[in-house]
Amino acid sequence: MLEALKQAVWEANMALPRHGLVTFTWGNVSGIDRENGLVVIKPSGVPYDRLQPEQMVVVDLDGRIVDGTLQPSSDTPTHVRLYKAFAAIGGIVHTHSPWATSWAQAGRGIPVMGTTHADYYYGEVPCTRPLTAAELNGAYELETGNVIVETFRTRGIDPEQVPAVLVHCHAPFCWGTDPDNAVHNAVVLEEVAKMALHTLVLNPSVRSIDGHLLDRHYLRKHGDSAYYGQNSRASKGGTLS
Amino acid sequence: MLEALKQAVWEANMALPRHGLVTFTWGNVSGIDRENGLVVIKPSGVPYDRLQPEQMVVVDLDGRIVDGTLQPSSDTPTHVRLYKAFAAIGGIVHTHSPWATSWAQAGRGIPVMGTTHADYYYGEVPCTRPLTAAELNGAYELETGNVIVETFRTRGIDPEQVPAVLVHCHAPFCWGTDPDNAVHNAVVLEEVAKMALHTLVLNPSVRSIDGHLLDRHYLRKHGDSAYYGQNSRASKGGTLS
Amino acid sequence: MLEALKQAVWEANMALPRHGLVTFTWGNVSGIDRENGLVVIKPSGVPYDRLQPEQMVVVDLDGRIVDGTLQPSSDTPTHVRLYKAFAAIGGIVHTHSPWATSWAQAGRGIPVMGTTHADYYYGEVPCTRPLTAAELNGAYELETGNVIVETFRTRGIDPEQVPAVLVHCHAPFCWGTDPDNAVHNAVVLEEVAKMALHTLVLNPSVRSIDGHLLDRHYLRKHGDSAYYGQNSRASKGGTLS
Amino acid sequence: MLEALKQAVWEANMALPRHGLVTFTWGNVSGIDRENGLVVIKPSGVPYDRLQPEQMVVVDLDGRIVDGTLQPSSDTPTHVRLYKAFAAIGGIVHTHSPWATSWAQAGRGIPVMGTTHADYYYGEVPCTRPLTAAELNGAYELETGNVIVETFRTRGIDPEQVPAVLVHCHAPFCWGTDPDNAVHNAVVLEEVAKMALHTLVLNPSVRSIDGHLLDRHYLRKHGDSAYYGQNSRASKGGTLS
Repeated sequence: MLEALKQAVWEANMALPRHGLVTFTWGNVSGIDRENGLVVIKPSGVPYDRLQPEQMVVVDLDGRIVDGTLQPSSDTPTHVRLYKAFAAIGGIVHTHSPWATSWAQAGRGIPVMGTTHADYYYGEVPCTRPLTAAELNGAYELETGNVIVETFRTRGIDPEQVPAVLVHCHAPFCWGTDPDNAVHNAVVLEEVAKMALHTLVLNPSVRSIDGHLLDRHYLRKHGDSAYYGQNSRASKGGTLS
Repeated sequence: MLEALKQAVWEANMALPRHGLVTFTWGNVSGIDRENGLVVIKPSGVPYDRLQPEQMVVVDLDGRIVDGTLQPSSDTPTHVRLYKAFAAIGGIVHTHSPWATSWAQAGRGIPVMGTTHADYYYGEVPCTRPLTAAELNGAYELETGNVIVETFRTRGIDPEQVPAVLVHCHAPFCWGTDPDNAVHNAVVLEEVAKMALHTLVLNPSVRSIDGHLLDRHYLRKHGDSAYYGQNSRASKGGTLS
Repeated sequence: MLEALKQAVWEANMALPRHGLVTFTWGNVSGIDRENGLVVIKPSGVPYDRLQPEQMVVVDLDGRIVDGTLQPSSDTPTHVRLYKAFAAIGGIVHTHSPWATSWAQAGRGIPVMGTTHADYYYGEVPCTRPLTAAELNGAYELETGNVIVETFRTRGIDPEQVPAVLVHCHAPFCWGTDPDNAVHNAVVLEEVAKMALHTLVLNPSVRSIDGHLLDRHYLRKHGDSAYYGQNSRASKGGTLS
Repeated sequence: MLEALKQAVWEANMALPRHGLVTFTWGNVSGIDRENGLVVIKPSGVPYDRLQPEQMVVVDLDGRIVDGTLQPSSDTPTHVRLYKAFAAIGGIVHTHSPWATSWAQAGRGIPVMGTTHADYYYGEVPCTRPLTAAELNGAYELETGNVIVETFRTRGIDPEQVPAVLVHCHAPFCWGTDPDNAVHNAVVLEEVAKMALHTLVLNPSVRSIDGHLLDRHYLRKHGDSAYYGQNSRASKGGTLS
């Protein structure tokens, strides 16, 4: 069942330790088959060096196990909630990668401090509000999904343009068009989080880059006028600008 | 004598350099056989790349060598003191891992700044008071054990729930259910110490997370209502929350 | 066409991930054949682990593709602009290496804080002014080249003596006598940027080293009186000073 | 000539990149044959991955080449000066290791902030005064040696008990009983420098540890009452304290 997606989700999970994003089992990746409304996700607490593609768990959009003999990640309700709310995403990554997590623990979103950020994230990576006692004592992982969705909706942020969030005092969730792309965005977030902290050490008054610079870099890689790489829509002729 | 425990203690010692927790010989792991009241510990000053399982030293709970041809770690009296005071622990790790040691040198305990900490440590990792001149000039390693025990008793901290301490101006000691689990906790402590420092750089006013968030994360992994991983007591059915 | 230069440019590109200067495809190296006025540069967006020498793209000094089937780096207009303005340089490197990029994001040049810097850079590595909205919305990559050239000309800096720049809120460009030497300078810049930040943490009032120390170290390695290494002009006899 | 010492000096040089202490050729190790008054040192500017034992250069205590076809390290006059002044040392290491160099650039000695430092260095690792213009413009490398010797003599520091120095705005020199021991001390210095900086970030008011703690740790490893390791003078019996 969903062998290709299981393989893709497994490969994306295995990329996490290779990119230095996880310690022990502190991370998980999922992917969705939109046609069948099924999510494939890492099993809970299984070490990466023993993880096998066939161990991936399939759940439906109510979080019920449809296929697999292991318990799915305890964060599954968060993943499912995000897939339901953000219709265009195909993969989700959760890690406790140390630089991004430090921002989450500080309760601060990561402003756009340079073009590296702007190449991937069209604006600040937001930090959610703290969960309330009721949310923490209730369906916690579902409420984590809810507060992420609330953050994007109330602040008018497009999750396709800003494919990551910091959960307050917890850690980042990232997403993308598929599991591999979500991991890519998680690697970028960690690098951006590290540089943003060092930028603040050098210049505590820095806030965000010029909106024109943000536009230029984000749109150089995204959308109809993109011209970065070999397959962008504007990469047609023999001239460069 | 105690071959299985010697092997386990040797493996736990060898994990220290693999996890980047030690430089040269700056670390040691021990394990206890509670039935016989015997402790197995690394020999003093032997480089990790030459360490062999049969070199592990067996001492009794008075610190006397019972088996082995090498001198045990000079920190043996600290280990023995902790095994006597903390009845439920089965393994102890001492390192000078750089991030945790920086907190020890600063004389500060590590507050619970996020869920990574809360997943493993049910409260601040405390820093002991400085030793007195008399303690430093007396049975130093034993007094180090004494001040750790004093820290937990006077502050009412359960060593099973907070399996680590920072010794003032020195370095961390961690423990666990067995030598391997103690190393696991030492890896977590180092990661938590690093992120806590960066969190403070980003937000110097941060103190501790909400008690409900602490409860939720600690109890998600520990005790009767744990539901993380494949073997937790609450992992029974096909639903997730 | 230009096989030797393609090979050299490819090797220099491959050195970037080996030195830890790039994440994903965030970097590019070019080299110039001054006789024929042709520049060889990395193709846009091709991952380093799949990059082949024959994929290098040849462009002329108007940025037009002369040889190659792939799109050249989107930063090609910046490279070409620098080759035209800085007549003595033979190779250019652009990366988002994290320490140097943090200085760029902070909008600060890197002062000469020690002899490591002085050995390679004869003065502060400058940070450009921000680009204007018109420049950002116009021929952006060309304007990036323009502002670099402007920085060196208006401040009277010799690009042979200070072979690097930080583009404001973006990242560094480095250059050298050939592609390999440009990568060498990029490695040095990253190391210098890291140490300069930590120096400021330890002593926020540090500015620049003594001019005599700068002279001694720079001139020990450069020019007629250099005496470092095996081939310097002053390395002739059997005495050392 | 001096084959065993050449081998030892070569091995010590090769250990520098393995311990992450050097970038490119930014470091050198020497050793001395006290009986013959001859120093063996790395040749200048030769990359570590091509360095061979037979390339080591032999110089006398006036810095004149006695054996070898290559130019010795440009820092040779500093090494020779230290061997002449510090009669008990057998090996010297110079690197630009980044954490120690950051302290040198900040113009600050490294106080004893914890037991890791105290285990190896019996007091602050001092930072020299800046060289004067006359010294910088004169026999620079010899004057570097002179200011190191001056630092230890005027402050009454025993170079055997504090086997390292930071040269102002430059970098560290370390020494030891032989080349291998000098490299060992250089690794320790780098680790201590890193932790001391992070300690200051956590607690800017920290200065030095209690003198009794310093004594206890330094004397636990050094001198007649040492009891760390397998060969210390006090490691005789079957009890530990």
